[in-house]
Amino acid sequence: MNTDGHSGTLFLIPASLGESDWALTHPARVRELACRLSHFVVENAKTARAELKRLEHPLPMRELDIRELPASPGAEDLETLLAPLLGGEDLGLMSEAGCPAVADPGALLVGAAHRHGIRVAPLTGPSSLLLALMGSGLNGQRFAFHGYLPVDEKERAKRLRELEAESRRQDQTQLFIETPYRNDRMFDALLANCDGRTRLCVACDLSTANEWIGTDTVAAWRRRDRPAITKRPTIFLILAD
Amino acid sequence: MNTDGHSGTLFLIPASLGESDWALTHPARVRELACRLSHFVVENAKTARAELKRLEHPLPMRELDIRELPASPGAEDLETLLAPLLGGEDLGLMSEAGCPAVADPGALLVGAAHRHGIRVAPLTGPSSLLLALMGSGLNGQRFAFHGYLPVDEKERAKRLRELEAESRRQDQTQLFIETPYRNDRMFDALLANCDGRTRLCVACDLSTANEWIGTDTVAAWRRRDRPAITKRPTIFLILAD
Repeated sequence: MNTDGHSGTLFLIPASLGESDWALTHPARVRELACRLSHFVVENAKTARAELKRLEHPLPMRELDIRELPASPGAEDLETLLAPLLGGEDLGLMSEAGCPAVADPGALLVGAAHRHGIRVAPLTGPSSLLLALMGSGLNGQRFAFHGYLPVDEKERAKRLRELEAESRRQDQTQLFIETPYRNDRMFDALLANCDGRTRLCVACDLSTANEWIGTDTVAAWRRRDRPAITKRPTIFLILAD
Repeated sequence: MNTDGHSGTLFLIPASLGESDWALTHPARVRELACRLSHFVVENAKTARAELKRLEHPLPMRELDIRELPASPGAEDLETLLAPLLGGEDLGLMSEAGCPAVADPGALLVGAAHRHGIRVAPLTGPSSLLLALMGSGLNGQRFAFHGYLPVDEKERAKRLRELEAESRRQDQTQLFIETPYRNDRMFDALLANCDGRTRLCVACDLSTANEWIGTDTVAAWRRRDRPAITKRPTIFLILAD
């Protein structure tokens, strides 16, 4: 895809999901690739520096060219951020946590790279969505990720019922996330609005020492102790019967 | 989730996607975990043995307990396969390629483990779906995986138009796969049935030396050279305008 033979490669570098040894979440050669780069576009500069230190990047952080991707970058922002690539340098794209360009705005930079014929190289690393799907025991042959659901209680209830109906119709696992301090309200909304036979998985603190994954029917969750999900990064998954 | 304190852990071990150094696709501690196990449930025993050799499992393959998961396992099959876990041994679940319980029947074993209160530990490794999504530049904030589409030409054309309409309605990237020898027919069907403004990504041989990822509008693909996807493992992704 590199049309001129002179531009660099855009490496997509996964970041840790929380406190964990990089040897559990990052292949050695992915770490080496990240440590060879000096140009980065990141979601958040502070967390990116912490992650690069954790990956034992050999250069002092002040010598690295680390630029933040705006939440809604315009075409000019993207051109500016791609400049090192067009000048022949490699560039690393990093998210705050997990895989860049998944559940974050990084895809816009990747799309711009494709328009320039720049080689894009996605690297293996931790993804909370994928780990949750694997660990859930719900259908991994058909699934959809929906990001955040509406915050308004009525809107959220309506959306949950829509997702459950779609899950039933397509035999499709539905994945979504919530701001961690609202996790309990999301859990309550799931128990209140979903059918008792629908299976619900709650997957917390994935890839860390506190990892916890529970799957049960909504009817059984209504009788179980509430899982300790308050303020813990959590993925919610449902599969209707 | 381990209700009795004596059962083992079900480790979900990703397998390589093709010819590649495990140091590029597997974290060192994931490899170590896999190499400590002697009980495995796998999609295909022959490819699982090859993968365990690639990961440098220290035991002779004949000393390992490797059982195949039937394509449609019944409740009794699942109970039999879980026996080592209930006896206190750890068990590894492996797919033919990529992450177990994603785009394969392994989720049924994971679901059965949850019903027994067995701890499930998903491990980080290569996923063609996730690498394709990252590398596509298409929307990673809303996406769905649909597995295989119908083989019949008319049925497939209808399904592609449905997926494109759903993509437009929900701003959702649609991912699907095809048997590699039918990739060219799938590509033709995409060019014939999708709107010219829809973006199409073709991602081949991910994580290997032959990796190739191209994203363009359908209108532009109609003018470009056909990508060399014949018989190469490929993920197709579309995002309607």
